[in-house]
Amino acid sequence: MSPGAALERKLTNVACHQLTPMVGDLEGNLTLIGEAVAEACSDGTDVLVLPELSTSGYVFRSRAEARSVAMTTDHPFFAETSAALGGTSLVVVVGFCEDGGEVLYNSAALIDADGVSAVYRKTHLWDRETQVFEPGNDLPPVVDTVHGRIGLLICYDMEFPEMPRLLALAGADLIAVPTNWPSGEHPVAERAAEVIAAQAAARTNGVFIACCDRAGIERGQSWNEATVIVSQYGWVVADVPDASGARPVARASLSLHLAEDKSISPHNGLLADRRPDLYRKGTLTA
Amino acid sequence: MSPGAALERKLTNVACHQLTPMVGDLEGNLTLIGEAVAEACSDGTDVLVLPELSTSGYVFRSRAEARSVAMTTDHPFFAETSAALGGTSLVVVVGFCEDGGEVLYNSAALIDADGVSAVYRKTHLWDRETQVFEPGNDLPPVVDTVHGRIGLLICYDMEFPEMPRLLALAGADLIAVPTNWPSGEHPVAERAAEVIAAQAAARTNGVFIACCDRAGIERGQSWNEATVIVSQYGWVVADVPDASGARPVARASLSLHLAEDKSISPHNGLLADRRPDLYRKGTLTA
Repeated sequence: MSPGAALERKLTNVACHQLTPMVGDLEGNLTLIGEAVAEACSDGTDVLVLPELSTSGYVFRSRAEARSVAMTTDHPFFAETSAALGGTSLVVVVGFCEDGGEVLYNSAALIDADGVSAVYRKTHLWDRETQVFEPGNDLPPVVDTVHGRIGLLICYDMEFPEMPRLLALAGADLIAVPTNWPSGEHPVAERAAEVIAAQAAARTNGVFIACCDRAGIERGQSWNEATVIVSQYGWVVADVPDASGARPVARASLSLHLAEDKSISPHNGLLADRRPDLYRKGTLTA
Repeated sequence: MSPGAALERKLTNVACHQLTPMVGDLEGNLTLIGEAVAEACSDGTDVLVLPELSTSGYVFRSRAEARSVAMTTDHPFFAETSAALGGTSLVVVVGFCEDGGEVLYNSAALIDADGVSAVYRKTHLWDRETQVFEPGNDLPPVVDTVHGRIGLLICYDMEFPEMPRLLALAGADLIAVPTNWPSGEHPVAERAAEVIAAQAAARTNGVFIACCDRAGIERGQSWNEATVIVSQYGWVVADVPDASGARPVARASLSLHLAEDKSISPHNGLLADRRPDLYRKGTLTA
C-alpha cells in the first residue's frame, strides 16, 4: 500500500505468541521462532508479534555473553524466515540481539516475504540493559504493510507516552511491541501496570497496540506474562489463556482501518486537538 | 516553601468532593462549594479538589447562559472562600466559569488563606465547550503550596499525555484535575477510560493525581462519577463510596514527597530517561 492511503475495510488477524526463549541458546530459540512462524503461516494469522530478544533470551551475565548470540540481519535466520513466508502476506515482528559492530542493540525486525522491511533499535533501555546495549538513536519506524501501517516499539519505550504519540503522528494503525516485562506487583483487581500504560496509549492516540510478553523463569527472573492486544479505544481485546497446556497465544481480529478515524466528537480529534504551541513552550522551559 | 525545595516527609490529606452543581444556579452552587470548604476546614483536609465548572454547572444551552453565571476572580466568592480558609493551611482547587471580558474560559482556581494563587484556563476543550469557551493559551501552573507543588489540569486536558508530562517536568508532586466526565461505556471489569489515562499519567511521571468528577443528571447528561485519587505508581488509592447516602468524597493520605523520587531502578529515572532529541525529531517531521 502507499503511505497515507486509506486502509481496506477488512479484519486483520493479529497474534502475539508468548514464547519462552532460553538465554544464550541461539539455535534453540531460532527453532522456537521458526515453529511459531510456521504455525502462523498455516492458521490465517496476518501479523505475528513475538517477544523482545526472542533470539537470545534476556538475563545476560555479561556483554560478552550477549555478544555470543548477537546477529546482524545478514544472519541466515532472516532470509530463511522471509522464505518461509513466501506465498503468504504474513508479517512477523520479532525482537533480536543485534550485532552493531562495536556495540550491541536490543532490536526488533519486521519481516515479510520480501525480506526485512525495518529494524528498530530500542531507544529507552531498562536497568541492566544499559550495561549490555547501546540505545538506538533513530525514531521508531512505521512500516506500510499490506495489512496497515505498523509502528514498532520495544518494552520500556512504551512507558514514554511520547513514543506511541510519535508513531500515531507518523500514521501508525497498529503498534507492535515485543516486550519482556519483569514481573511486578499490582493490586489483585488491577491489570499489570505496563498494560495500563498500553491501554492509555491506545486510547489517547486511537491506535491498536499488540504487546507480546515472554514466559519462563530465566536466572531467577519471572515475567508478567501479560501479553495483550488492545483496541484503538484502549480496551484489552485479547490476552493469553490461563489454562496450563493451552498455547500462550493472544489472538484478535482487528479492523485496523478504524485507527484512521481520530474523530471522537463532532468537535474533537485526538491528534488535531493537540496543542504543540503549548507543549513546545513547556519543554523549552523545563 | 521555596520552589525546588525538598518536601517534608509527612502525610497530606487529599479529598475530592464529587459535588452536584445545578446549571445556571450560581447562588446555589456557591453555597454548595462553601459547605464543602467549611467541612474540609474542620475535618483535617489539606487539599480539597472540587469539580470542573462547580460554580456554574456544565450543560449550557448557549454562550449567553454561560455568561450569565461567569465571574472574575474579583467576585466576592473568591475573597470569601479565602477568608473561610483563615487559620488553616487548606488549599482548595475549584473549577469555575470565568468571565474573560469578550470571551469566557473554563477555568480552575487554586485558593488558600492568602487568596487566589493561580488560575488555569483549560487549553483542550471538549465537544460543545468549543461553542461556549475560548481555549486558554498558557501553560498549566505548578503552585508551590505548604503541602507540595500542585499542578492544575481540567478534564479533557488529561487525555493529552503531554500535559501531565509538562507538569511533572515543571516539578509537580500532585496534579489536581477538576473534571466533568460525561458517562461513557466501558467493559464491566475495567475502570472508566479516563481513570486509566490518569493511572498511566501518574505512573509514567511518578506524580500523584486527584481527579474530582461531578454527579447529578444535568439536562439528560449523566457522568462517570468516577472521582479517583491515584498514587505515584498509578494505582487508585481512593474513590467515592458506592453506598447511596454516603458522602461522595474520595479521601487519601498521601506522602507527596515520594513524587520527588523519579528513580525506578538502579539505572533508570522516569524523567531522566526521556529522549527529547528523538521526540523533537518526531514532532518536527509529523
